[in-house]
Amino acid sequence: MSIYAVLGAGNGGQALGAILRHLGHEVILWNRSLDKLKAISDRNGIEVSGQMEFRVSIDITPDISEAIEKAEIIFVVVPANAHLDIGKLMAPYVKSDQAIVLNPGRTAGCLELRNALLEGGCKYLPIILETQSLFCACRSKSPGEVYILSFKKDNYISCTPKSRYGEVKNKLSIIYTNLILAPTTIHTGLENIGAILHPAPVLLNTGWIESRNVFFPHYYFGISRSIASFLEKMDKERLEIANKHGVKVRSVKEWHEDNYGTKGINLFETLQKNSAYASIDAPRELTHRYITEDVPTGLVPISELGRAAGVKTPLIDMIIELGSTLLGIDFREEGRNLRRLRLEGKTINEIKQSFE
Amino acid sequence: MSIYAVLGAGNGGQALGAILRHLGHEVILWNRSLDKLKAISDRNGIEVSGQMEFRVSIDITPDISEAIEKAEIIFVVVPANAHLDIGKLMAPYVKSDQAIVLNPGRTAGCLELRNALLEGGCKYLPIILETQSLFCACRSKSPGEVYILSFKKDNYISCTPKSRYGEVKNKLSIIYTNLILAPTTIHTGLENIGAILHPAPVLLNTGWIESRNVFFPHYYFGISRSIASFLEKMDKERLEIANKHGVKVRSVKEWHEDNYGTKGINLFETLQKNSAYASIDAPRELTHRYITEDVPTGLVPISELGRAAGVKTPLIDMIIELGSTLLGIDFREEGRNLRRLRLEGKTINEIKQSFE
Repeated sequence: MSIYAVLGAGNGGQALGAILRHLGHEVILWNRSLDKLKAISDRNGIEVSGQMEFRVSIDITPDISEAIEKAEIIFVVVPANAHLDIGKLMAPYVKSDQAIVLNPGRTAGCLELRNALLEGGCKYLPIILETQSLFCACRSKSPGEVYILSFKKDNYISCTPKSRYGEVKNKLSIIYTNLILAPTTIHTGLENIGAILHPAPVLLNTGWIESRNVFFPHYYFGISRSIASFLEKMDKERLEIANKHGVKVRSVKEWHEDNYGTKGINLFETLQKNSAYASIDAPRELTHRYITEDVPTGLVPISELGRAAGVKTPLIDMIIELGSTLLGIDFREEGRNLRRLRLEGKTINEIKQSFE
Repeated sequence: MSIYAVLGAGNGGQALGAILRHLGHEVILWNRSLDKLKAISDRNGIEVSGQMEFRVSIDITPDISEAIEKAEIIFVVVPANAHLDIGKLMAPYVKSDQAIVLNPGRTAGCLELRNALLEGGCKYLPIILETQSLFCACRSKSPGEVYILSFKKDNYISCTPKSRYGEVKNKLSIIYTNLILAPTTIHTGLENIGAILHPAPVLLNTGWIESRNVFFPHYYFGISRSIASFLEKMDKERLEIANKHGVKVRSVKEWHEDNYGTKGINLFETLQKNSAYASIDAPRELTHRYITEDVPTGLVPISELGRAAGVKTPLIDMIIELGSTLLGIDFREEGRNLRRLRLEGKTINEIKQSFE
């Protein structure tokens, strides 16, 4: 039996906490706002349905020091744009024999968390890990109820420092199907598939999203033929950046073939064949994590890593600018830019080391 | 009685030709392809309904020299991206006592037509005029049938050289309600409202346009709240360019208030209140004149006139790039750029003269 903290009581955090409890471990679930915790408490725990069916009780707290005090592993399951704040909140309490896992880190999550811990006064860094995506696809209709649609077939994870991975591997592999250690956090960060698949299709359907009152499937109708072709061009910019930073990542099409086993002659057909996407509704407004999370913690750091490597990213930049204009938020300024990541002026080699 | 040529047998050309015939004038209707002309001939003329109701016979020809030979006024009613080709076709036959009217010119239409005539060997230039928009809103279900929804309340026109306007004014005012002479073709060119209202909303609804099979109104749902706000920002770039070129043009919101009498606190509300827009369907594919005409003959020359005047146009440029990427067409290269307009390297004052 191990002791886990789960930070964030959204659908992912609830699923993770419930499964760990179901496996017989001690778990404490933290959330910044009390509402969700109270609702879970009122229901005497979490009920899981879908791919697994069970009900468990779970300890809850809104006090982050209490949440992480005894935890061997701290799972962070919040939108990546909250990593910086969570890091600063945790900084005074984290110890070097603990491990923090970002689920997922999006792009440059470990690096941002490390910076936040150091700036928050953490003297002895814990192990910091990030996954490439959440371990399952799940939905939560209301706090205390989680529906698990599917588990990811492969789960890429990266660890800083990589030398300490052995200390946590067994405690992690109980939750992730086929856990694969990526060579560096640049690898998990640049294989951020959501950054390609989420913001552009939303912005290129703005009128539909704001005018409709019926369901439309993001991956089927939102990613129409021309948009899929646009995404493949955008994806090439990401692949070129990864190449310049010395990591080999999969194209968004290859990633889908690996994860869902569907194969088409192009991205459009690959997505159209993926039945797991049938029920995924598009956002109902632009202020949705597909924009507010995936632009500042996905497209912005990808673009900035491109800039550092001398790779032009006109399409990625266009989507960042389009999102910034439509939402009235300067995502490049507020997102994970080189300055905020403490990478400004560094060489490719120095950047490589920062991600290790 | 005057003699008119109408070049282009689309809905606008048919409406114009039919009304002129109805007013008792001699009209010859030209179209490049024979299909439409043949269909009109098979129906023994054109039937007009809606705001006016009548049926007239009309002379037709696919031979441009025959069409313009005796015409006092030559109305060009084709998509503006065809002005260059039409100009070259007409060049050998046009005489200096004739007048050519572009309906409408979009941006820099007169200038482009003059260049085309000169390059095509025309030695003595005719009077060249351009309207700011078509004189009516009309639809044609099939050749020989035109439905007129409404007539424009005001019709801005510009004339090169302006000194010759007196020669044609009376022959033109029979067709246009409240004909207003604009100070220069830069004025009509920069008051190109379609360039603001057409391409961006189409591109920002790409998935909807490519996935739907039901009607959705371009101006009501296509221009949702965030898109309308985006268009107002884009419109400011256009107003700033006009200001730098010494002309005062109306904002897209003011233009609607003048033309349709609807008034809202912002563009979104102004458009939502305009009942004339209720039946206007959005395009059913991206290869539609809202993109293929309005980007190369609207946004491109507006952006290029901005560049010549030192005005930054990030949003206009973004839409040009987005359209170019989605359609796989280099609109800036193929459109009315400074080079193609023979304006590259000219001062603001020289540009001003070119438009007069």
